Amino acid sequence: MNKIEHLGIAVKNLEVSNTLFEKLLGVAPYKTEEVASEGVKTSFFKTGESKIELLEATTNDSTIAKFIDKKGEGIHHIAFEVGDIQAEVERLKDEGFTILNETPKRGADNKWVVFLHPKTTNGVLVELCQEIDKNE
Amino acid sequence: MNKIEHLGIAVKNLEVSNTLFEKLLGVAPYKTEEVASEGVKTSFFKTGESKIELLEATTNDSTIAKFIDKKGEGIHHIAFEVGDIQAEVERLKDEGFTILNETPKRGADNKWVVFLHPKTTNGVLVELCQEIDKNE
Repeated sequence: MNKIEHLGIAVKNLEVSNTLFEKLLGVAPYKTEEVASEGVKTSFFKTGESKIELLEATTNDSTIAKFIDKKGEGIHHIAFEVGDIQAEVERLKDEGFTILNETPKRGADNKWVVFLHPKTTNGVLVELCQEIDKNE
Repeated sequence: MNKIEHLGIAVKNLEVSNTLFEKLLGVAPYKTEEVASEGVKTSFFKTGESKIELLEATTNDSTIAKFIDKKGEGIHHIAFEVGDIQAEVERLKDEGFTILNETPKRGADNKWVVFLHPKTTNGVLVELCQEIDKNE
């Protein structure tokens, strides 16, 4: 794990929360992006070497909609940057962690992403991510 | 806000979770510390320029004990490093955020800390922190 790549926060209304986090962090979001396959609209703020990602559900069966129904708005996941996502998946499987998708999928912000099940990580939804090479 | 200083994770058993996060992050905790005034034992892991702080309650009325009773183990707060904590408190008050303690208090890892109420930050418990000068 190289660093915290980003922290994902589930919000009800991206526009309202963009204004709120701009006030909190003192910077504007540097991009917004829709990930249709995940049923989310996202925005990203830089803070040091990491990012804050806000996520609003665009469908009722989106993971984010379900999370907010159950727990309300709040921190949804933590993402770590890794150098070799497939090797890291193998290492973590061997250590006994439960991997939700062993084959990396395309996430927001041009990343391959893999999630670990919170039941093996103290209730924390952990994402691994690796930049997608421009030739992939 | 300069960067994510650390992410605080509430755990039931620090020893068990130290082993778990050592496997996850691939590094051992660089220190453990008890903060009696907050009723917590903590441990810290480096990840890039940020840290992961694990928190176990040492008293039944500790904030961490109440959090785990209500929500289970998981991400408890996000802490941002600031250069001038008192100036940041004034700025955030003016922006409409609710400050839980306007006078910074001594937290773990030699820091002055201030918390913002989650009701004004999308359900996220936000901590501001600033290194305590060795002459203070």
